[in-house]
Amino acid sequence: MGEAILSDFLTEILIPVAAVIGIAFSLIQWILVSRVKLSPERQPPSSGNKNGGLSDYLVEEEEGVNDHNVVAKCAEIQNAISEGATSFLFTEYQYVGVFMVAFAILVFLFLGSVEGFSTKGRPCTYRKFKTCKPALANAIFSTLSFLLGAITSLVSGFLGMKIATYANARTTLEARKGVGKAFITAFRSGAVMGFLLAANGLLVLYIAINLFKLYYGDDWEGLFEAITGYGLGGSSMALFGRVGGGIYTKAADVGADLVGKVERNIPEDDPRNPAVIADNVGDNVGDIAGMGSDLFGSYAESSCAALVVASISSFGVNHDFTAMCYPLLISSIGIIVCLITTLFATDFFEIKAVKEIEPALKKQLIISTALMTAGIALVSWIALPSSFTIFDFGVQKTVKNWELFFCVAIGLWAGLVIGFVTEYYTSNAYSPVQDVADSCRTGAATNVIFGLALGYKSVIIPIFAIAISIYVSFSLAAMYGIAMAALGMLSTIATGLAIDAYGPISDNAGGIAEMAGMSHRIRERTDALDAAGNTTAAIGKGFAIGSAALVSLALFGAFVSRAGILTVDVLTPKVFIGLIVGAMLPYWFSAMTMKSVGSAALKMVEEVRRQFNDIPGIMEGTAKPDYATCVKISTDASIREMIPPGALVMLTPLIVGIFFGVETLAGVLAGALVSGVQIAISASNTGGAWDNAKKYIEAGASEHARTLGPKGSDPHKAAVIGDTIGDPLKDTSGPSLNILIKLMAVESLVFAPFFAAHGGLLFKIF
Amino acid sequence: MGEAILSDFLTEILIPVAAVIGIAFSLIQWILVSRVKLSPERQPPSSGNKNGGLSDYLVEEEEGVNDHNVVAKCAEIQNAISEGATSFLFTEYQYVGVFMVAFAILVFLFLGSVEGFSTKGRPCTYRKFKTCKPALANAIFSTLSFLLGAITSLVSGFLGMKIATYANARTTLEARKGVGKAFITAFRSGAVMGFLLAANGLLVLYIAINLFKLYYGDDWEGLFEAITGYGLGGSSMALFGRVGGGIYTKAADVGADLVGKVERNIPEDDPRNPAVIADNVGDNVGDIAGMGSDLFGSYAESSCAALVVASISSFGVNHDFTAMCYPLLISSIGIIVCLITTLFATDFFEIKAVKEIEPALKKQLIISTALMTAGIALVSWIALPSSFTIFDFGVQKTVKNWELFFCVAIGLWAGLVIGFVTEYYTSNAYSPVQDVADSCRTGAATNVIFGLALGYKSVIIPIFAIAISIYVSFSLAAMYGIAMAALGMLSTIATGLAIDAYGPISDNAGGIAEMAGMSHRIRERTDALDAAGNTTAAIGKGFAIGSAALVSLALFGAFVSRAGILTVDVLTPKVFIGLIVGAMLPYWFSAMTMKSVGSAALKMVEEVRRQFNDIPGIMEGTAKPDYATCVKISTDASIREMIPPGALVMLTPLIVGIFFGVETLAGVLAGALVSGVQIAISASNTGGAWDNAKKYIEAGASEHARTLGPKGSDPHKAAVIGDTIGDPLKDTSGPSLNILIKLMAVESLVFAPFFAAHGGLLFKIF
Repeated sequence: MGEAILSDFLTEILIPVAAVIGIAFSLIQWILVSRVKLSPERQPPSSGNKNGGLSDYLVEEEEGVNDHNVVAKCAEIQNAISEGATSFLFTEYQYVGVFMVAFAILVFLFLGSVEGFSTKGRPCTYRKFKTCKPALANAIFSTLSFLLGAITSLVSGFLGMKIATYANARTTLEARKGVGKAFITAFRSGAVMGFLLAANGLLVLYIAINLFKLYYGDDWEGLFEAITGYGLGGSSMALFGRVGGGIYTKAADVGADLVGKVERNIPEDDPRNPAVIADNVGDNVGDIAGMGSDLFGSYAESSCAALVVASISSFGVNHDFTAMCYPLLISSIGIIVCLITTLFATDFFEIKAVKEIEPALKKQLIISTALMTAGIALVSWIALPSSFTIFDFGVQKTVKNWELFFCVAIGLWAGLVIGFVTEYYTSNAYSPVQDVADSCRTGAATNVIFGLALGYKSVIIPIFAIAISIYVSFSLAAMYGIAMAALGMLSTIATGLAIDAYGPISDNAGGIAEMAGMSHRIRERTDALDAAGNTTAAIGKGFAIGSAALVSLALFGAFVSRAGILTVDVLTPKVFIGLIVGAMLPYWFSAMTMKSVGSAALKMVEEVRRQFNDIPGIMEGTAKPDYATCVKISTDASIREMIPPGALVMLTPLIVGIFFGVETLAGVLAGALVSGVQIAISASNTGGAWDNAKKYIEAGASEHARTLGPKGSDPHKAAVIGDTIGDPLKDTSGPSLNILIKLMAVESLVFAPFFAAHGGLLFKIF
Repeated sequence: MGEAILSDFLTEILIPVAAVIGIAFSLIQWILVSRVKLSPERQPPSSGNKNGGLSDYLVEEEEGVNDHNVVAKCAEIQNAISEGATSFLFTEYQYVGVFMVAFAILVFLFLGSVEGFSTKGRPCTYRKFKTCKPALANAIFSTLSFLLGAITSLVSGFLGMKIATYANARTTLEARKGVGKAFITAFRSGAVMGFLLAANGLLVLYIAINLFKLYYGDDWEGLFEAITGYGLGGSSMALFGRVGGGIYTKAADVGADLVGKVERNIPEDDPRNPAVIADNVGDNVGDIAGMGSDLFGSYAESSCAALVVASISSFGVNHDFTAMCYPLLISSIGIIVCLITTLFATDFFEIKAVKEIEPALKKQLIISTALMTAGIALVSWIALPSSFTIFDFGVQKTVKNWELFFCVAIGLWAGLVIGFVTEYYTSNAYSPVQDVADSCRTGAATNVIFGLALGYKSVIIPIFAIAISIYVSFSLAAMYGIAMAALGMLSTIATGLAIDAYGPISDNAGGIAEMAGMSHRIRERTDALDAAGNTTAAIGKGFAIGSAALVSLALFGAFVSRAGILTVDVLTPKVFIGLIVGAMLPYWFSAMTMKSVGSAALKMVEEVRRQFNDIPGIMEGTAKPDYATCVKISTDASIREMIPPGALVMLTPLIVGIFFGVETLAGVLAGALVSGVQIAISASNTGGAWDNAKKYIEAGASEHARTLGPKGSDPHKAAVIGDTIGDPLKDTSGPSLNILIKLMAVESLVFAPFFAAHGGLLFKIF
């Protein structure tokens, strides 16, 4: 077996140090972004070097535009967006807060009732000869860690939104100096969010473990069971963030586009469009706050899944603290690796032209993956004994440290493969999107048919990548291997989030440029940033889905262990009906969220049409539209509409567990996982492809693209229809499905002791 | 245990008698249809009674149109359609024939090699003390029954097409006398197909069993194993029929609509449209021949699945012939029940107005289900011992005859539930389709979003119905219960097919009326028939999908038994990767078929545009378009494009079985089943809803509908786009998915002995 090289004392120090470094780095990035002044005065060059053809002369100065007015206008618009986003998030948090408190009580009652709220210790599940802490303690600490996870997730999303709304106008202003400067501002802001979230998640989890340990002592089994509440809290918050934010952003976007672009023929983000502020607010609450909560949830869950499985393995039994903290050490080294990777984008190289943006972002993925592989090897070498045993559904399996290295590394590289495949299917540099654009010649119908087919096709390689990761990591280290593969995929989360958040920030920057009436050249620059952002957003979603699949499987495994199920046999009717109903849930959920976006968009369309008709001078730009009403429509709709899908996801495991028992619930989880992951990938890639097919026609960068354009041509109109259909697919229903599969799994895991003790009422009666 | 009331001798007589009655009834219906004369002379009234406000005076006579010309024109068009369909099917059969011979050789070689082509007997699998026939015999008879199934399926599809192309113009001509007469002609023709197919399938199966018994003697285990080849042959043929036919019909339909309706603003089925003949041919080769082969395949497979499971139960072991033939007796009584049901539509009541059509078809479903319930009770009472044992994965389970009654009945009633839910979501009499129509106000994008959401939502209840049937029938009688539930759902197949085939016949009748230049009033009547047909087509697809799900599960169970697997545990990596990859296959398959339709439609569009531009006088109707080129484009495209999806389905079980072994294959089958059934239902309901939303706007029957219309308005244009997108979903990819899940399961079952003996190479090597 042997000992880990790294001492327990060093482990205790290294993890918080890495987290603090991450937080410090993100603060430095923030300070660098804040150097871009939003007050209307001549700003000093943000750095001294004037090399590489970049010029600090502003486009406005060349074109004789009054700088003072432009900056003031940008500041004003930023303010409106920031206020709208803050007010929406506060409203959302009020509702979610009530729910969280109610659900926390439920967690406490359900878990406490397992042993009838007894305060007596009970025999441990896996080490029968020892006494573990009572079920009541598990109830209390699970509830606490649930609330902690929810609050951390909330803070992650909120800070992300704050940073994004702080950075958007600054990116616009920097675009006056050149595309390189604008890129760095947007990317740095993304990095602030990425590092803050990764480091924060790690630190809170680390502190919680250490605090809980004061009570649990050497009952690690109980300790890490209670810690799984952290993942549940993180993902519950993420569910409402993704769904609420997703409905908000797409109701506004679809509504704005349908009237503005299609009916009134005015450009995107035109300040005459009453829904334009709501649209830009939406990017921040949906794509930033929602996505931040989502990835934080995945990260928290895969850490919890790995820890809970490890706690019943030789690490836990032998109280090998360093090996036990292996998942946290992987995340720690991930922060350092991402820090170095970020410097490649912001300091080591400089973007000089539009066509360098996408390769620069792609390089981020490759560099972080390559460095991280070395990082994983290092951690596996120093933090693990050369050989140890892992709990594998009742039997102990011997694993070597290099085998665990392969588990983490295969997850990491599968993520890269998924990222590249997603890029291939959603970037307009390749033939799939160009074929979709070409099909717009014959109208919207063929565009939609080709787009749907593209999305379906884009599922193939990611699924094989996930299947291979599962097979290898499962064969090497059972469910612990799967959990570590998931964590491997998420180990470069800081970089992933940075390039993901970069997208909506650039999108907003473009919107602000348009609304502030800045020159066409600046809009061209922000558009180029935005097009790259569409692809990175799709890549980010690919990561989120891939990791969600692995995380869910790991949680599923932990649930099965904890519920005391030995096999989940498809040939038993209990399991099979779970499987087929589980496979149906993503459809039910998507139906709800898409219908919600559709209905909210219809309301938005009516309001926007009303304003165009009723407010005289709105089209001429002499009268100001009533932005606030549109913001209110989006807010109300998303708050109201997020409840039914949220209830579906949160209640299904409870209902199935209580009435049908743990076997059927295991079937439901497996069914939802294998079906949901397909819809999630195809929906987000179809949407991304339609968006970029439209951008391909608009940009007209190639001979082929020009034959389809220009803006306003019939193929372009068909492309706009595809883009609009894709909006709810890629930004509401698709990404929410990650959370559906993860959340049901983690919820089942947390409630497993209750279901095992009191579940399956219906089968008990009949 | 007891004996069955019905003697073996009577069973031997009853089954063929029922089949012969079915065939005789279908011939009588044909004769009645043939009374409508297509030669240009004043035809005698088809029956003497002139009651109920129906008049034998022809609309043409009232309107003074020259009857001679109209009839001649109809005959000419019918001829063109019939020739096109026949020539396509012959081309298709040539290609498929080559494939079938090749695959038959494969079946022989694979199964023969299990025991090294030895001619020596071997110990039976389930009764170890006895000697069964050699594996080589199984190879030979499986190959024979495979070819028999393929040929029967081919004949079923071909005859269906012949009847449909015989009836379409006759329906048009009858529409001159009134909507009731036209309805009866179309429905009678559908019944010809339904009864011919059901009776033929039963008779061939019965004869094959009796002939094979001459060799197999009392080795029933071997006998019914060999018979499963019949199901494989039927479904292989169905795959190519559905996919090839589906691509043909939708390439023509989409191509015709995109240029004709959208660009040139000419009505559907306008003779000036060069693709119009191809479009009408498509209905017959896709919706008739393809669907006929598909349902025949389901019927053959569920019979085979039930028989093979029964052969290793007490029926088989005790050589209880009557009980063994229970599945065939259920089908026999089904023919009689459907015969009586048909009379309700054609003789007992008469349709007098347009609004009576849908209720009449719905009544068919209800009457057949109610009568059949009694029929099942009767057969269960007389043909089964009061108690018997069923093979349940290694153990024997005792089952009572009334329990088996519930298994069959729940399948039957689940079918009715699926039928009604499908009707609710696809008929424009209810709010879901009206909401979709309403969303066309804001354009095609919201129409598509609402339509997709509707399709997703429509999955919920059918899945619960299927899940409940599975749970009940599985709990009562293990896999035999599932197989019998599937057969229960298909027991009224003759009626199901009649109302299903009625749709395309009416569609064609409308096309012929338009092309022959008949009056607006006749077109209105055929349109009404057609709108009801859209809903019944969706119901038919619902049945096909529901039964496919049950059949696949039964085949899956039989495969697992035969391959000697005891559990299919999701927690083993081998099974889980199978599950997730299996769940991906329907997406891969749909991507292929949708892309195929898209590409073929693009070619069609170019040709149609070329003809409109190049042929002078085509728009004025003075020059005749070149129909043959369009027919050729559809033919070539569908033959070429059916190969890759066909290969995907046929090769997957072979590759997985040979390289990854039976456990992974079991995972693939389960994954494909639970994921495929959802996509299939949602795709066909979404498509049906879009089609009827368009018809709702066109018909303008309500105040609400009129605010959206008339034809050519913006909402109508948006509805046409939705309809076009739905075409490949509902008629190509959706219904083909039934076959994907069934065929993979039956193929695995047939090859199970080979995979069990020689499969899993990859895992054996590593």
